[in-house]
Amino acid sequence: MLYGLDERAAAIYAPVQAGLEQVESKLKGLARHLNQDRVNQDGAPAAVEDLRPLLDYVAETGGKRVRPAITLLASHSYPHDPDKLVLMASAVELLHLATLIHDDTVDDSAIRRGRATVSSLWGHHVSVLFGDYVFATSATFVCDTENIRIMRRFSETIMDLASGELMEYFGAFDPTQARERYDDRIYRKTASLFCTAGESGAVLAGAPENEVQALRRYGYHIGMAFQVGDDLLDFQGDESNLGKPVGSDLLHGVLTLPTILLLERYPKDNPVAALFQDRDNPAKLQQVLDLINNSGIMRDCQEVVRDYCDRASHELQTLPEGEARHSLAALAEYVRDRQR
Amino acid sequence: MLYGLDERAAAIYAPVQAGLEQVESKLKGLARHLNQDRVNQDGAPAAVEDLRPLLDYVAETGGKRVRPAITLLASHSYPHDPDKLVLMASAVELLHLATLIHDDTVDDSAIRRGRATVSSLWGHHVSVLFGDYVFATSATFVCDTENIRIMRRFSETIMDLASGELMEYFGAFDPTQARERYDDRIYRKTASLFCTAGESGAVLAGAPENEVQALRRYGYHIGMAFQVGDDLLDFQGDESNLGKPVGSDLLHGVLTLPTILLLERYPKDNPVAALFQDRDNPAKLQQVLDLINNSGIMRDCQEVVRDYCDRASHELQTLPEGEARHSLAALAEYVRDRQR
Repeated sequence: MLYGLDERAAAIYAPVQAGLEQVESKLKGLARHLNQDRVNQDGAPAAVEDLRPLLDYVAETGGKRVRPAITLLASHSYPHDPDKLVLMASAVELLHLATLIHDDTVDDSAIRRGRATVSSLWGHHVSVLFGDYVFATSATFVCDTENIRIMRRFSETIMDLASGELMEYFGAFDPTQARERYDDRIYRKTASLFCTAGESGAVLAGAPENEVQALRRYGYHIGMAFQVGDDLLDFQGDESNLGKPVGSDLLHGVLTLPTILLLERYPKDNPVAALFQDRDNPAKLQQVLDLINNSGIMRDCQEVVRDYCDRASHELQTLPEGEARHSLAALAEYVRDRQR
Repeated sequence: MLYGLDERAAAIYAPVQAGLEQVESKLKGLARHLNQDRVNQDGAPAAVEDLRPLLDYVAETGGKRVRPAITLLASHSYPHDPDKLVLMASAVELLHLATLIHDDTVDDSAIRRGRATVSSLWGHHVSVLFGDYVFATSATFVCDTENIRIMRRFSETIMDLASGELMEYFGAFDPTQARERYDDRIYRKTASLFCTAGESGAVLAGAPENEVQALRRYGYHIGMAFQVGDDLLDFQGDESNLGKPVGSDLLHGVLTLPTILLLERYPKDNPVAALFQDRDNPAKLQQVLDLINNSGIMRDCQEVVRDYCDRASHELQTLPEGEARHSLAALAEYVRDRQR
């Protein structure tokens, strides 16, 4: 079983297990890559031993590898060059890891997935520059697929991921944000990379354009479901929330779906606005949490997640029958079932 | 005259002045770009008004534009698509601006070219993420040239720029660094982008491969000359050093050529090692500065700069005669003459 996944996830990944193992090798081989393939015409020595501990750290980051799995599954029903697909899937995961390095840097997070973060181990100076290095490494992998459409999409995705995080920052403590803004923000910061994961797998395998678009939209809906689901955990005090206090997003001024629905329901005298006026008052936070938990809002949010998952499944109808389509459907079910 | 350049620089740029003006328009048009070309298939609104002040800031950064000038001059003697070359030259400048945003962030610099930095105006959170956004934007410009070789080179260059800065950080306060390590480091952090500026212009204009390589090596030598020259300013208390204290690099533990030559001359009982043991002692710093200024080391360093410039000129011999070659030679002379 790969990466300590539960049995259900492992079964979903089964058709592309070999490819996912090659992705792991690529990530573990970054330090090797650094020393072997860079012989400058200018005679500069290629080894940068300084980076080895950082690259080793990235190789052992773990995680569910859901993005590369989508890339590989999106290509699986079509005749394809497995090496190119492994490159692309590795690029998608590496890009995700690069964004985590910078997100943890700007958020001053000490722990991620139970491990100390790059910024807490090496400091901000290193984590900013090393994040840049990992972004660029992921881009070289995409270049090696030699597909210009996907290279451009990949660069646009980095713009989306960064602008999504910036929107979150600039919108903090602003209780006037509409639902549309939230949707745009989480599309950028999360779903955009899921879109690219699906689209790139299909494009590189030469899928017909309507199927490429279906796989891109599949990625979109799964990505939106993921992010809304994650945002709900922040209100649930769930063990998956890894020890963060309940309402942590809200304490940082970040509006997520439950808060936005609350603002829609109570446009006047809203307790969120009151909390933002008096941020350190635990009673004000508790008032918001109580209202969210006792108003049926959480149920409505869970319904939103399920709806995204259903739409993701629906997109699969145009695809060829087979084990990959079956796995993509099972992945949508898996995300759906995270909502009780 | 462009960008407040002195007359001599303006004359050097004259053959590509129209192209450089289009580069300015591209940089000024980033906010427009943001709003116009991104219509997601998924229906997410494309405008991110939050970024507008940041994009406007980038458009007004100024600077000598030497890197895009090299790209345009490298293409000028060959039949070429001017739009592609303007895209590439804009990408090269934008990549440079992105690295400045992150460098100022990690160095906590408040001022750059007489203006407040992004990190001092908006804070680290924004400057890290906005730097990412600018990196990615520059990459989309390169994608639009549709040249895979140059796209890969561009990504490798970002890896070089980041790893060069990391080498500087990890090597700080280490008095055992060899000259070779310094050369590798400044190649990565500075000359690599000059190499790519020359190479990309030539490749996109379809220059013969030996001329492409000559233009890449031209960029290498000009870039090395630039960085060594900048490093010398730190010891000269020159007005171009913009108010930084003399010996500022050394105070931050960064070894540059004068210090490295000093270490080579006095391998035992070196005053640099003594300074690094007792960092806050101004007498120890003064001892190092006196020794560098009274030992002929500065003259040797200036000779290194002139030698790089001569090698840059030498590379031009294989190129077609004409105004572009003339300008590139004049640029090498210009950099050479910065050393008295």
